[in-house]
Amino acid sequence: MEKAIYLDNANVTRVADEVLDTMLTYYREKFGVPGGEFGHIYEEEAGEALWKAREAVARKINARPEEIVFTSGVTEGNNLAIKGVAEYMGRKDKVKIVTSRIERKCIMKSAEYLRNRGHDIEFVGVDAYGFVDSEALQKASAGASLISVQHVNQEIGTVQDIKEIGDIAEDVGAIFHTDATHSFLKEKIDVERMNIDIMTLSGHVIHAPLGSGALFVREGVKMEPLFHGDHKEFGKRAGHPNIPAIMGFAKAIELMKEDDIKRMMDMRDLLIKALLNIDDSILNGPKGEERVCDNVNVSFKGVEGEAILMLASAEGLIIRTGSACFSPELRYSYVLKAIGRSAEEANSSTRLTLSRYTTVEELRKGVEILENSIERLRSISPIYRKVAR
Amino acid sequence: MEKAIYLDNANVTRVADEVLDTMLTYYREKFGVPGGEFGHIYEEEAGEALWKAREAVARKINARPEEIVFTSGVTEGNNLAIKGVAEYMGRKDKVKIVTSRIERKCIMKSAEYLRNRGHDIEFVGVDAYGFVDSEALQKASAGASLISVQHVNQEIGTVQDIKEIGDIAEDVGAIFHTDATHSFLKEKIDVERMNIDIMTLSGHVIHAPLGSGALFVREGVKMEPLFHGDHKEFGKRAGHPNIPAIMGFAKAIELMKEDDIKRMMDMRDLLIKALLNIDDSILNGPKGEERVCDNVNVSFKGVEGEAILMLASAEGLIIRTGSACFSPELRYSYVLKAIGRSAEEANSSTRLTLSRYTTVEELRKGVEILENSIERLRSISPIYRKVAR
Repeated sequence: MEKAIYLDNANVTRVADEVLDTMLTYYREKFGVPGGEFGHIYEEEAGEALWKAREAVARKINARPEEIVFTSGVTEGNNLAIKGVAEYMGRKDKVKIVTSRIERKCIMKSAEYLRNRGHDIEFVGVDAYGFVDSEALQKASAGASLISVQHVNQEIGTVQDIKEIGDIAEDVGAIFHTDATHSFLKEKIDVERMNIDIMTLSGHVIHAPLGSGALFVREGVKMEPLFHGDHKEFGKRAGHPNIPAIMGFAKAIELMKEDDIKRMMDMRDLLIKALLNIDDSILNGPKGEERVCDNVNVSFKGVEGEAILMLASAEGLIIRTGSACFSPELRYSYVLKAIGRSAEEANSSTRLTLSRYTTVEELRKGVEILENSIERLRSISPIYRKVAR
Repeated sequence: MEKAIYLDNANVTRVADEVLDTMLTYYREKFGVPGGEFGHIYEEEAGEALWKAREAVARKINARPEEIVFTSGVTEGNNLAIKGVAEYMGRKDKVKIVTSRIERKCIMKSAEYLRNRGHDIEFVGVDAYGFVDSEALQKASAGASLISVQHVNQEIGTVQDIKEIGDIAEDVGAIFHTDATHSFLKEKIDVERMNIDIMTLSGHVIHAPLGSGALFVREGVKMEPLFHGDHKEFGKRAGHPNIPAIMGFAKAIELMKEDDIKRMMDMRDLLIKALLNIDDSILNGPKGEERVCDNVNVSFKGVEGEAILMLASAEGLIIRTGSACFSPELRYSYVLKAIGRSAEEANSSTRLTLSRYTTVEELRKGVEILENSIERLRSISPIYRKVAR
């Protein structure tokens, strides 16, 4: 495992050394918990650190520190956002919520839960590249209280036109939530310009620890907390703030530079080009600026994704697939299904995730391993016959 | 701050060095996330570690590993427990929930939320030492779907007779939840013998990190998740498990020894004796075996808790108070109110928390600082007149 090339999620979930150092400082030296009830004055130090972390998040998205609610990450954030709004607005009557067919599972399942509670949920489809059909969205949004559409897709990297969706939400007077887990620090975000009311951020994909994240909640937007209890986080999230994780999150934000993003974009394009050079391959999701910098997803006709994974990992390359065999529900990726991929195409998909730490040398080796694995698998495949080009 | 004597919550919330070492191993070397959808085989290593952590928790409470759901701590655990059960059982009709007047705020506020949703909530009172009135509990429990009573109180350390409450729950066919945050590893817990169906555990009071904790959920007990999404944690809590925090939690469990508890009990008794030796002092909560090993809470007539805190901290002793001045809501401790303390008595209360790291020497110095602070404050108090004994 030592020398493996991680082009799977571990590439982004791995915590940066500088972040760990920051966390250790708060574990070992500055271990106060701010604003504990009946608590002591030395906790002010922790309170000040917490405020600085709020400012660091707010600055990146053109928000104010008091609009930042720290959470344990994307799952909590997305649950709080859509259930929090629905349960607050829906105390007396059902509410209408519009979302897309390619959101993260925590949005999909929260929406299903709300539907089972009598609310009206509409899922809007996407085109062959994963872009939300804006006409369908506009139509569905009539009478909606909440629109929730992600900024960047978790599997195929599609970058939605968030400003356009924000404008639709504003037109119908709906609250607009976006899950920006995969765009934060990687795409420009301006909550004012984009009319975003609530936005989910997560530390686990920017080299900050699991258990860190934030929800932007525009001043005046009301929601029921997911964690009831004390008045922490402006009454929106009870419980001791996880200071070491939060300070690590803030450090991770500081560490990501524009040059890193630029380099990842170049590597993404290089990788896509190399993989599409392999026979009978198709790119899942868009190219260029319409795709986030760290995501590549390619299907290889006639081979099974899990077979590629196994073979590649034996050679030291760690990647992912949208194949049903790796899903606990034994269903292939609903994202790939939504963009019109067949079961066969989805089962032959591979997902590669880049990070600030990825090198061109790793990519070169990775492509070589993939090429060899696919050639070998196709040579023994009873179904693969090279398609004339 | 360096040489301060922490007899406040920081004494227990501070993370053990051995726990940090364990966490760092999982951050730096074993950074796989188990069971990621469409994920890779090397994640099995993380999956195995996670299972061992489940076993470590289960062993301590006579449960099975598959009954352990890892959470981010007490606030999430208590919210999941009571809202999860109420929302599952209450899909069609209102449910009745019985709890006590001295539960943690996350229980109190979750209960209030459920009451606002039309459910029937009854709060049972406690006696002068914080013990739940078992006759009143029995009476209130008729027709209850859920009974939630804490094992140990967070402010005055009262250890409830959980077996008796579990038996009442069984008699009426109610699900029994207990918040064991302050008893875990400190009091004997046997979920079978005590008829416990759901139990909240938290890492932040046993030298494990904030963001770690677990919920015991007896096999067959149904609840709505608080985090909807993937099928992690047996479908009861979606989202990537926070492996470093969980492994730190398991390590903290391993570190706590029976001798530590015994030593804390002795120190607790020593401290109570020394503080009651100060004129016009009253102990809040019970003595001896009926009180948890790490909690001391004493009121000093004629002085304000926050004044004691200020003066003591200037001398290097960090403690807490149940005074209204340190509460964001400017109300004095509802726990002290529930045991019949007047506002004056509550405002003059001090809370001291012991830990495995506390030394007798620290206690001796701490008592000296307290004695001096109280004497000084009383000497300038316009209201304090020594009461004849």
